[in-house]
Amino acid sequence: MSKKTNEGITVKKNEDFSEWYSQVVQKAELADIRYGVQGFIVHSPWGFKILRRIYELLEQDVEADDHEPFLFPLVIKKENLDKEEEHAGFAPEVFWVTKSGSKKMEEEVALRPTGETQIYPMYSLWIRSYNDLPYKGYQSRICTYRSEKTTRPFLRGREFMFFETHDVFATHDDALEQVEKDLTTSDEVIWKQCKIPFLSFKRPQWDKFMGALNTFTPDTLMPDGKRNQMASTHDLGQNFAKAFDINFQDKDGKQKLPWQTCYGPGIWRIMAALIGIHGDDTGLILPFDLAPKKVVIVPIFKEGSKDSVIKYCEDLKKSLDFSCIVDSTDATPGFKYNKWEMKGVPIRIEVGPKEVSEKTATVVLRTDKTKTSVKIEDINSEIKKQSLTLDKEIEKRAKVYFKDNTHDAKDLNELKKIMKSHRGFVRVPFCSVEKDGEKCADKLKELTDGVNVCGTLYPKEEKASGNCIMCDKKAKHIVYTAKSY
Amino acid sequence: MSKKTNEGITVKKNEDFSEWYSQVVQKAELADIRYGVQGFIVHSPWGFKILRRIYELLEQDVEADDHEPFLFPLVIKKENLDKEEEHAGFAPEVFWVTKSGSKKMEEEVALRPTGETQIYPMYSLWIRSYNDLPYKGYQSRICTYRSEKTTRPFLRGREFMFFETHDVFATHDDALEQVEKDLTTSDEVIWKQCKIPFLSFKRPQWDKFMGALNTFTPDTLMPDGKRNQMASTHDLGQNFAKAFDINFQDKDGKQKLPWQTCYGPGIWRIMAALIGIHGDDTGLILPFDLAPKKVVIVPIFKEGSKDSVIKYCEDLKKSLDFSCIVDSTDATPGFKYNKWEMKGVPIRIEVGPKEVSEKTATVVLRTDKTKTSVKIEDINSEIKKQSLTLDKEIEKRAKVYFKDNTHDAKDLNELKKIMKSHRGFVRVPFCSVEKDGEKCADKLKELTDGVNVCGTLYPKEEKASGNCIMCDKKAKHIVYTAKSY
Repeated sequence: MSKKTNEGITVKKNEDFSEWYSQVVQKAELADIRYGVQGFIVHSPWGFKILRRIYELLEQDVEADDHEPFLFPLVIKKENLDKEEEHAGFAPEVFWVTKSGSKKMEEEVALRPTGETQIYPMYSLWIRSYNDLPYKGYQSRICTYRSEKTTRPFLRGREFMFFETHDVFATHDDALEQVEKDLTTSDEVIWKQCKIPFLSFKRPQWDKFMGALNTFTPDTLMPDGKRNQMASTHDLGQNFAKAFDINFQDKDGKQKLPWQTCYGPGIWRIMAALIGIHGDDTGLILPFDLAPKKVVIVPIFKEGSKDSVIKYCEDLKKSLDFSCIVDSTDATPGFKYNKWEMKGVPIRIEVGPKEVSEKTATVVLRTDKTKTSVKIEDINSEIKKQSLTLDKEIEKRAKVYFKDNTHDAKDLNELKKIMKSHRGFVRVPFCSVEKDGEKCADKLKELTDGVNVCGTLYPKEEKASGNCIMCDKKAKHIVYTAKSY
Repeated sequence: MSKKTNEGITVKKNEDFSEWYSQVVQKAELADIRYGVQGFIVHSPWGFKILRRIYELLEQDVEADDHEPFLFPLVIKKENLDKEEEHAGFAPEVFWVTKSGSKKMEEEVALRPTGETQIYPMYSLWIRSYNDLPYKGYQSRICTYRSEKTTRPFLRGREFMFFETHDVFATHDDALEQVEKDLTTSDEVIWKQCKIPFLSFKRPQWDKFMGALNTFTPDTLMPDGKRNQMASTHDLGQNFAKAFDINFQDKDGKQKLPWQTCYGPGIWRIMAALIGIHGDDTGLILPFDLAPKKVVIVPIFKEGSKDSVIKYCEDLKKSLDFSCIVDSTDATPGFKYNKWEMKGVPIRIEVGPKEVSEKTATVVLRTDKTKTSVKIEDINSEIKKQSLTLDKEIEKRAKVYFKDNTHDAKDLNELKKIMKSHRGFVRVPFCSVEKDGEKCADKLKELTDGVNVCGTLYPKEEKASGNCIMCDKKAKHIVYTAKSY
C-alpha cells in the first residue's frame, strides 16, 4: 500500500512515548484510525496477524485446561443486564440497538459490554448436577462495546478485542485453584511467549470488580511509567449464581449454589505492551513466534544483475523453513530496510551479486543489526540460532527495564521523589487492603496526582514491615503503587 | 450437561425433514435457541467447533491465494451505507445503534449488514497505484446483522456468521480470473473437505446482487428438495469503485478505476448442508476432518471390572494419534452410543473385560455401525483406515443423493410432475437469462408455487437445445430451476 509507511519515527521512544506509540501504530500499519467513527478502528493486516497469534496462544492454553469454546450473541436483553446490580456500573457506557430499518424495536437490546449477564442465564439452563461440574467455557475473537470518552488504539476503545473464560465449580476451593491456573495461563502466554514481564496482584477491596469476592491481575509497566493491566481473574464467589439462578444437585442430593470464576486477558492490552516495551526508535520489535513474517529477503541489484539476484532470492525463499517475504518492489534497499524494521520482522536477509556468486546470504538481526554472512546450505540453522538470540535479547531487555522501574519507598516523600524521576512501580508499606484502607489510598492518589494502590503480590504475598506511608499505623501489607491507564 | 440430549430423534429424516433438522440442532448440541432474543442463537461448543473448522479451512485457502486478513468495525456510518444506491435494498433490515447509556448519540450507526460500504471507503485511502494491485483482503469469524422476519439456526438469523473477501484489480480480466479462483476455494472446502456436492451457477440478471455485473454461486440441495446457496462471488465491475472513489495511477501515468470482486461463503449455510445432507435418522454424520472429536471410547464394565476397564481406556486414549474422549460417566453404554452417534463422532471404540484380557478394542464406524475387533497395537492404523472408509461412504452417499435429485424436463408439465414427486434441481431449456427472461421466470414461479431459475452452469455453460418451457421461443440456455430457502 502506498501510505507513507516508510518515513522513520520522528521522535525518540524515551523522549515522547505517547507520540512514538501513535507513530508506530500507524507506520508499522497495525491499525488505521481513519475509519470515521470515534473509538472504532480498523485492525490492519499486520496488526491483525499479531493479535490473532495472541488469540491462538490463549485458545491453545485454555483448551489444554479443558475449556470448551462457544459463541454468544452480540446483544443482551435489558432485563439480564439489570439482573446483577453490580453491573449497573456499566450502564452509562452501554450502547443500545433501538431500531431496525426505520421502525422502533419492541425491545431494545444492548451491545455486550462483557459476557457475564449473557452467559450465566444459559448456565442456569445447562448446569443441573455435580456431574456437570466443573463447567469451563470460553469465547474468543469477539469484541465488546463501551462508550469510552477517550480512546487510543489497543489501550482503550469503544470497540475492543475480547476473550473471556467463565467457569463454574462445586466448591470455593476448586474456584481458587482455577485462579492460580489462570495465572499460569498469563505466565505462559504473556511472559513466556510475548516476553512481557508482569507482577501478579490481588487487588485491594476498593478496586476489585464489584460483583466479585476478589480480583487478580497481571500488571506490567508501559514506558511512560504507567501500569498496564493485561488481564483479570475474578473470584466471583456465589454472587452471580444467586443473581442468575444457577444451582446444582450435589452428590448428597441437595440443591446448592456453585462457585464461579472468570478470566479475561486483554488482547489489546497485551498488544499495547508488546509495542511499548519491546519497540525501539526504529519501530516494532517482536518475539520470533509473534512476527507475521519471520524473514524478509531484500534483493540488491544493479541493471545487469537484477534477474539473477531476484531468482536467487525466490529460490532462497522456497528453501526456508520460515514464513518469508521477498521485497522486490522498486523502492531502494534502504527504504525497504526501514519499512521491515518498522514492522518488526525479526530477520532480514540481504542478497546482492556478491552473495549470488559466493552462494551465501547476509543475515541481519532486528535487535542489534549485526550482519552475518552465511553459506546458503546453513541458512535454516542460522535463522533458528538467531531467532533464539533475538528472543533472549528481548527477554533480557524487558527484564532489565522492568527491574529498573520497580522501586522501594519507606514513606510518602520517598515515593514522590521516585515518581518524579523514575515512575513505575513503587513498593510501600500500607495499613490495609480491606475497605478500611481506602481512605489512605484516596489520600495517596490526591497527594501524588493519581498514584494508585495496585494491590499485594499474589499468590505469595510479601511479609509486611514498617508503617503505612499514609497513616503511619503499623503496616499489614506491602503493596505496589503506580499510575494507571 | 444434563440437557436431555440422549433421547433419539423422534421423526425420520425423509418423512419430516424440518422437524428432524430442528431436533438434530438441539440434540447434537449444535446451538441453543433459548437465548431469548429472536434470531440470535448461542453457538454451543460442539456446533461451534465444527463451524470454527469450516472457518479455518476457508482461511487457509484464501491466504494461500494471497489474501491478507483484517478486521473492520461492527458499525457503519449512515453516509457510507447510503453511498452505494444498490445497498438501499438492505435498508429496511438494518439495525441501528442510537443511544449510549441513556443519551441519544450524535450520529446513529448501523450494525454491519455486509462489508462493502465499510471496507471500500478505506480501500480508497489504501489504494493509490498499480503497485498496490491486486489488493486482496478478507475478514473472518465475524457476524453480520439483518432484521429477518423468520429465522432458523444456520439457515437464516438476525445474527449470522460471516466471511468475506474483497479484492481489487487493475483489469476486468484479472477480476474474472478471481471469480474462478473463488470457485476453486468453494470446490476445495465445500466439496473436497465437507463432502457437500454443488452446482456452480451464473445467476440470471434479475437475480444477481444488484450492485454487481454478475453473481456466481455454488448451490446445493437440502433433503426437502430446496436449493441452499452456500456462497457467492460478485463480479462488481467498477460500480463500487465509482461510488467510493477508489482509483489508482496505472503504469501509463493515468488515473483509472479498478475492478472489484467479493466472495462470501456462508459459514452457516455450509453447516446447514453438512447437517442436512450427511445426517441420518440417528443424528449427525461428519466427515472425519470436521468432527470435533474423532473417537469416543466407551468402557463397558460390571462391578468387579470397572477399574481395570477404565484404566485400559485411559491408556488407549493416550496411545491414539486422534482426538478422543473417554465417556466414563455413569450412564449406560446404550445411552452413550446414542449420545455420540447423535453428535456424529466418526468412530466408537467399545472396551469391556473381554477386550482388556485379549488386548483388543472393538471399533464401530458411525456410518454402517459394523464392529471390528482390532489388536491394540494396530489401533491407529485401523482408525486411519476406517476414517477413509467413512469419508468415501459419505462422499458416495452425497453424490448419489445429489444425482437422484437432479432431473431434466422438456416442458412445464414435466417440471411440475418432477416437483411433485422428487423436487430438487430441474434442468430445462429457457429463453434468456438477461433482463428479457425475467417475465418467463416470474410466470414459472407463479405457476409452480415458487420454483426459481437458479442460472446457467458456470464456468462451462451447457449447450442449449429445445424451446423455452415458458414462452416456447427457441431456448438460448439450459438453466437449472429449484425451490429456494
